[in-house]
Amino acid sequence: MTGGSLAIVGLGPGPAKWLAPEASAALEAASDIVGYQPYLDRIPQRPGQQRHGSDNRVEIRRARDAVAMAAQGGRVAVVSGGDPGVFAMAAAVFEAIEAGEPAWRALDITVVPGISAMQAAAARLGAPLGHDFCAISLSDNLKPWDIVQRRLRAAAEADFVIALFNPASKARPETIHLAFKLLRGCKAATTPVAFARAIGREDERIVLITLGDAEPSIADMSTLVLIGSSETRFIERPGGPPWLLTPRTYGAGR
Amino acid sequence: MTGGSLAIVGLGPGPAKWLAPEASAALEAASDIVGYQPYLDRIPQRPGQQRHGSDNRVEIRRARDAVAMAAQGGRVAVVSGGDPGVFAMAAAVFEAIEAGEPAWRALDITVVPGISAMQAAAARLGAPLGHDFCAISLSDNLKPWDIVQRRLRAAAEADFVIALFNPASKARPETIHLAFKLLRGCKAATTPVAFARAIGREDERIVLITLGDAEPSIADMSTLVLIGSSETRFIERPGGPPWLLTPRTYGAGR
Repeated sequence: MTGGSLAIVGLGPGPAKWLAPEASAALEAASDIVGYQPYLDRIPQRPGQQRHGSDNRVEIRRARDAVAMAAQGGRVAVVSGGDPGVFAMAAAVFEAIEAGEPAWRALDITVVPGISAMQAAAARLGAPLGHDFCAISLSDNLKPWDIVQRRLRAAAEADFVIALFNPASKARPETIHLAFKLLRGCKAATTPVAFARAIGREDERIVLITLGDAEPSIADMSTLVLIGSSETRFIERPGGPPWLLTPRTYGAGR
Repeated sequence: MTGGSLAIVGLGPGPAKWLAPEASAALEAASDIVGYQPYLDRIPQRPGQQRHGSDNRVEIRRARDAVAMAAQGGRVAVVSGGDPGVFAMAAAVFEAIEAGEPAWRALDITVVPGISAMQAAAARLGAPLGHDFCAISLSDNLKPWDIVQRRLRAAAEADFVIALFNPASKARPETIHLAFKLLRGCKAATTPVAFARAIGREDERIVLITLGDAEPSIADMSTLVLIGSSETRFIERPGGPPWLLTPRTYGAGR
């Protein structure tokens, strides 16, 4: 084994304005770029650089391939949308290392953080994450429904703002409906909800609504769903949709 | 009122490699930069640009000043460390707007997201945020202790990874100790804990430990504290501190 390296790079939500300089530099320096094909398509092709595109369903195989390439001396970049640390490739890579060859633990590995979809959505909406919050992935196959249920209940009990990642799934389309049904049972119908789809990209779409009126089936896999705390509110304004605010102080009016 | 604008800009954790291009552009275009003095000190001084530094304790006054300057036609940038949307200036600005002059709602306002301390810490540590997590600020004066307590209990019950922001306070130094005492009562003593201080800056310091052995008084206001879920674990490696992993799949071994 020679001195290969592996960078796990966050591409952010899409536009170049949100790509950190460290990420640009890692992409430029790479001999091999590994990732889900639509993410690779966002990156300028550089001469001499190999690309290894794959289907999104084989995260762990992609992670193993990337580590193995680095172990053979490559300067490998494996890319994620958003932040690789949040429900993304960083965990897949370290799972592959944990289960893989002992020599892999000696590799030079860097995680390059990126702006997550949650942050891009929050920025576009105003300040919905100004106070305590939680992030829950509804991705299928990664956890049993009873743990999702337990977490949604606890999040409501704690009065966290709730960010739902991966709200839609072909295999389990009912999950988001079950999640909304549960939350409607323990949070006010007037709670603000935002569906923030493909923020920063051409097909961006935002729907602001209340928990009582929300139609969860509008969420697809490019949508980040934000559900307010009891303090989250709309600020109406002329000439645009309302801003969404969760104030820094809790219980000020009580 | 003329056409002023206000950008609420995230500077990230410190180093230029984590400053998004949109943030650089907003700082360059500003006629006035408003912020906590140590954050202003990170930004190159440009000719003709006015700086308005202040003490950290007057967030809401700073927010009001920035909005008022924009209302008078300035191209104002108000800066935050990390992500302005996460426990930072975005909420303060929208609180100021909500309580302020009606004309302020017609202003051109942009939130420019940044890499948060939580993400920088996660990137340095491995993949601790690979699964569901919550973020709780222990900042004093912003919420009663009973809501912090309720949230910590709910976070333990939900088995979230827990990120604690602003863990130390001169006014209430006991808060972090109370938080650890509570968590020790409801989580395993072997739960991995990381104290990640000033990540990316010269005085960066990381302490990896378990919940049972942690000494919470080492956390200062530049420290992000991460407390694992029941699935979070260390991956030992030669020549460096262990990586921290929370796998994407929950309950795989049960």
